Amino acid sequence: MEQIILGIDPGTRLMGYAILSVEGNKATLVTMDVLNVQKIASHELRIKKIFEATRDIIDTHLPDFLAIEAPFYGKNVQSMLKLGRAQGVAIAAALAHDIPFCEYEPRRVKQSVTGNGAASKEQVAAMLQRLLRFPEMPDHLDATDALAVAYCHFLNNFGGIAQAAPKGKKHSSWASFISENQSRVTKF
Amino acid sequence: MEQIILGIDPGTRLMGYAILSVEGNKATLVTMDVLNVQKIASHELRIKKIFEATRDIIDTHLPDFLAIEAPFYGKNVQSMLKLGRAQGVAIAAALAHDIPFCEYEPRRVKQSVTGNGAASKEQVAAMLQRLLRFPEMPDHLDATDALAVAYCHFLNNFGGIAQAAPKGKKHSSWASFISENQSRVTKF
Repeated sequence: MEQIILGIDPGTRLMGYAILSVEGNKATLVTMDVLNVQKIASHELRIKKIFEATRDIIDTHLPDFLAIEAPFYGKNVQSMLKLGRAQGVAIAAALAHDIPFCEYEPRRVKQSVTGNGAASKEQVAAMLQRLLRFPEMPDHLDATDALAVAYCHFLNNFGGIAQAAPKGKKHSSWASFISENQSRVTKF
Repeated sequence: MEQIILGIDPGTRLMGYAILSVEGNKATLVTMDVLNVQKIASHELRIKKIFEATRDIIDTHLPDFLAIEAPFYGKNVQSMLKLGRAQGVAIAAALAHDIPFCEYEPRRVKQSVTGNGAASKEQVAAMLQRLLRFPEMPDHLDATDALAVAYCHFLNNFGGIAQAAPKGKKHSSWASFISENQSRVTKF
């Protein structure tokens, strides 16, 4: 049965989102994009827009899960409060439809997708492009960040196969691949 | 026409809420209470409970406005992120019903209700009890904090009269009363 994962990388200026369709242990990219709320001056209206946009995405794609990137660090308490609110309204849009949500720390997302918890956004995006074969990089890497968290949820919950993994033995994640192939790992 | 203000003091352990009914420039307390989510171990389930409880409160009382206490300071970034999420899901429950929300800093709430931006929770509660004549103090002052933010919204938007103000000239808020009655103000 097809399962739909909505990945969200919430921010108070740009919110990345991605829809991943999972059948068995194969994942296919449905869509990814960013919601740009930078031009909305008031924080209240940004929050409203993020809520409404997330609700629209859910109404359109009817996801079974929400996976959200959840940093637990930040520049200052004020920006974290605002980020928390942006996350909160996105989560609530899912809760309103009884869609369960999971959160993943950025390090874990990067580790799951690339095998390197300290990978750059560009490295994550490049790996996803190889795995999911999308022709063009999106303008904003917030979209690939959202895809990364959806893909992380897939790897961690569906016994997903990282499709770009070398042929031969199949690994349930890059983490397991790496732990068994230390000699092939380039350290950054 | 009666207008209903929902006041919320969101926290990740206790969420205070209060319903204030406004007719003309008079406010009446309908109810206040706290939602206690301390026993819920996971942050995800707390967030879910806060969202569902706020939705239930809205369904029951059909408020016209949400007034929320919004601190812009905090102990650390992690607690602020969690607080922001709690705020976010409460705000989203209102946004889902097209209920506008306003946020007030704690200092402004205290200033509006007591005339002293540095008033204690107990002073705020005592003033509200005098103004709105409720017989018993609630067990948790998070409930009176929520009532305070609802009352602050009332004072700032309905030309509300602080009912405990001295007879004679009517003031639209304690702030205006104080600015014109400096000699009667005790400094803390």
